[in-house]
Amino acid sequence: MADLSRLSLNTVTLRDQWTLRQCIEGCARHGIPGISPWRDKLAEYGLNRAARHVRDAGLRVSGLCRGGMFTADPDAAAADNCRAVDEAHVLGADCLVMVVGGLMPGSTDLVGARARVADGLADLVPYARAAGVKLALEPLHPMTCADRSVLSTMAQALDLAERLGPEVGVALDAYHIWWDPALADSIARAAGRIHAFHVCDWLVPTRDLVFDRGMMGDGVINIPALRAAVEAAGCSGMIEVEILSIAWWGRDPDSVLETMKVRFASVV
Amino acid sequence: MADLSRLSLNTVTLRDQWTLRQCIEGCARHGIPGISPWRDKLAEYGLNRAARHVRDAGLRVSGLCRGGMFTADPDAAAADNCRAVDEAHVLGADCLVMVVGGLMPGSTDLVGARARVADGLADLVPYARAAGVKLALEPLHPMTCADRSVLSTMAQALDLAERLGPEVGVALDAYHIWWDPALADSIARAAGRIHAFHVCDWLVPTRDLVFDRGMMGDGVINIPALRAAVEAAGCSGMIEVEILSIAWWGRDPDSVLETMKVRFASVV
Repeated sequence: MADLSRLSLNTVTLRDQWTLRQCIEGCARHGIPGISPWRDKLAEYGLNRAARHVRDAGLRVSGLCRGGMFTADPDAAAADNCRAVDEAHVLGADCLVMVVGGLMPGSTDLVGARARVADGLADLVPYARAAGVKLALEPLHPMTCADRSVLSTMAQALDLAERLGPEVGVALDAYHIWWDPALADSIARAAGRIHAFHVCDWLVPTRDLVFDRGMMGDGVINIPALRAAVEAAGCSGMIEVEILSIAWWGRDPDSVLETMKVRFASVV
Repeated sequence: MADLSRLSLNTVTLRDQWTLRQCIEGCARHGIPGISPWRDKLAEYGLNRAARHVRDAGLRVSGLCRGGMFTADPDAAAADNCRAVDEAHVLGADCLVMVVGGLMPGSTDLVGARARVADGLADLVPYARAAGVKLALEPLHPMTCADRSVLSTMAQALDLAERLGPEVGVALDAYHIWWDPALADSIARAAGRIHAFHVCDWLVPTRDLVFDRGMMGDGVINIPALRAAVEAAGCSGMIEVEILSIAWWGRDPDSVLETMKVRFASVV
């Protein structure tokens, strides 16, 4: 029997097929012990109902996706990020994943965008600390720098996290960081701060910059080596499967979970 | 009158419209003083004919694209790279641009691929040195790591170049490196080794991982800031416009060159 005790479903993997309620029921039915909801689906279900359902199903919430988006409208982001912290607290989530946002609209000022991110995080940290919610800064693949995340590497995320305080860490997603020549050093440096570990695969060719991720084993990422490095850095939390993919969103959701379990046991 | 004295046409910008002969004639007609040919077009025209034509037209060859591709078949690459060095020598090119190659076919061994690249380069350097040809290692955007270049950042390229010797440098392409949080440090460190500087722009959204580059001014890269950093590092060579774009390949080639000149004068 495969060991699925650390497997968590990031619900975006079934974005187009299931509601959050269906994802919780699906995890319970398939023996998947962890779940990581996205906030749009959480709002749709209702925070308190979702929190009760997750608890009753005995699932661990490995993270909440996502806070961040500091760059476009800092005031709106500040308010929304406090709500995200509250939600993560109610869910008992292991962390709140932070996707920081891209360039300001119409701007080429990358330095300025990064400064906004640092300022926004510095404002949020005391609130998150008071709520007992860990923030996990997620570097996104550099191909999303313009429109999603000016935070692009583990080294950059760690520079920020170390300045922000001991409870601020990183979300390490294989898809976003596998190519990084400095990765081994960065993972070792991240010891004690790896709040989330996400897996999926990089397809060759990749046909879309956002929605063409692969199932583990269908691409070129050496996931076992990455997992070993993460574990050597002392991280033994849940491992989330997060696949944004037009192809997988078109498939039967129960068969997606079956495939996910098989691959988790064989190639993660 | 705009100063075009440092403008060079990377001929891939007109890949689908013009032969190399037509590109040389076009540069002469438009007052563009530099050219950087790709080897497939060079082979089609004939090396010696092309070299004579470039010389007669009074053009400076800012680079030859490209050598590299060490990972798939190292022996074939070694032979082909020597031919590329010979061609760069005959053309009197400022440098031979090196695109190192992606993962080995069917492999997930990124560390092994990078070792092949380092070995292949070490073998080539004496040959290039004897021919008086500068090698310019080009880090490519991380989104091409799997299939085109396991060399992804300036820091990684400089680590390699510094080990290989004083005449090995880097080709710095705005499109590939603009997002890099360590870029300012890397450019300063590259002083004396910037053998090529390429510009184009990053479009939002980007619809293809390879063939959707933008004309300068149509995207989000702060090209003047990048150029200033490059110049502060002592680089005052040609500035190549290299646009791989299905959209621009569909346009009238003379109007592409006109637009290129206007944008070079206004936003580079």
